[in-house]
Amino acid sequence: MVEIKVLTDILGRNEAQAAENRKRCDAAGVACVNIMGSPGAGKTALLEGVLRAGNAPRIGVLEGDVSTTADAERLAALGAPVVQINTDRFGGACHLSAAMVGAALPSLPLADLDLVVVENIGNLICPCEFDLGEHRRVVVASVAEGAEKPLKYPLMFRKADLVVVNKVDLGASAADAAEMCDNVLRVNPAATVLPASARTGEGLDSWTEWLRTLGSGRK
Amino acid sequence: MVEIKVLTDILGRNEAQAAENRKRCDAAGVACVNIMGSPGAGKTALLEGVLRAGNAPRIGVLEGDVSTTADAERLAALGAPVVQINTDRFGGACHLSAAMVGAALPSLPLADLDLVVVENIGNLICPCEFDLGEHRRVVVASVAEGAEKPLKYPLMFRKADLVVVNKVDLGASAADAAEMCDNVLRVNPAATVLPASARTGEGLDSWTEWLRTLGSGRK
Repeated sequence: MVEIKVLTDILGRNEAQAAENRKRCDAAGVACVNIMGSPGAGKTALLEGVLRAGNAPRIGVLEGDVSTTADAERLAALGAPVVQINTDRFGGACHLSAAMVGAALPSLPLADLDLVVVENIGNLICPCEFDLGEHRRVVVASVAEGAEKPLKYPLMFRKADLVVVNKVDLGASAADAAEMCDNVLRVNPAATVLPASARTGEGLDSWTEWLRTLGSGRK
Repeated sequence: MVEIKVLTDILGRNEAQAAENRKRCDAAGVACVNIMGSPGAGKTALLEGVLRAGNAPRIGVLEGDVSTTADAERLAALGAPVVQINTDRFGGACHLSAAMVGAALPSLPLADLDLVVVENIGNLICPCEFDLGEHRRVVVASVAEGAEKPLKYPLMFRKADLVVVNKVDLGASAADAAEMCDNVLRVNPAATVLPASARTGEGLDSWTEWLRTLGSGRK
């Protein structure tokens, strides 16, 4: 028999903490972005692309992973202030919570940033249930996952402001990428969809510009 | 405010139901395999490969998805008895539970099968926490997800009997596939690791043989 703690109203508590996080970012004149997607969709690689861009906004990163600091090290090497959140201390949690973000935010130099980017745990299902206090939600999906994935995991895509369809260089054909973009719009006609490849650089200008616009004029 | 039902001892109940499922399969002389992996790792494609093989075992499939019957239709088209389990009725659950499997098992013709293959929800974290009553656990990981994934999501790999490293044709280099296999063995030295490509057919003979051996001699 396994004993489980009884958690009451856990989503309600999460929402209250998320509102706190959003207020803290607003007060500092910083936009907060929650980036989600499957393991290996390319979330970190797309952030590396932005950090390397000449006109990048000033970004601080909250890096969520079950285990390791590998991604945080990649981004810190490009000069971004990064705080690693490892969930293996929380039973290997499959998503970030507002409480984790709230605990990490004070470790970022908000006064010197335009954007806080939260890179969520690699998971196409659970993270979208948890408001972290973000202003925008980004989903990264790799063409290599299969063009039908937006139809099979609709909730994640339905709640996204921007969907980056990544690794367009890896699909079996150019039609795969187009079909995946179409499928995103079938489940969320209001989403902005951006085909990209962190490896070849395709779409990185638009992705950087999207973040720069979001972060500008808030101070 | 969101109200949450209080669930007590949910894992304990799951374990009891899993034991029931295992007993039912044992009584019917059928082995049960739980296949897990990220969205788009290639779980369905690898099953298609087995069902097309000349010496395939007799397989019944419990197909888990948040939404759609797309994968079930692909496998049914190859002659396998398939039961679809959609979790969007269960709040879009991110994993299959023993109760879902227990409810679906009577719909399969166990007397005529060697194997029940449960294709779990695409998720590299949550499903491995839930015993479904399986005899063996298989994890499918795509090289396109990145060779470091076993280190970042260790629990899933640690509990696997067999890890199929799929899409070896898609890696940036042959070294990617080899590195991913090495990383599986770093977190789980006891695992059997099988490089494969459902697209090119590499490794499909070994994969079919592994399943055939597991399912034989139980009647």
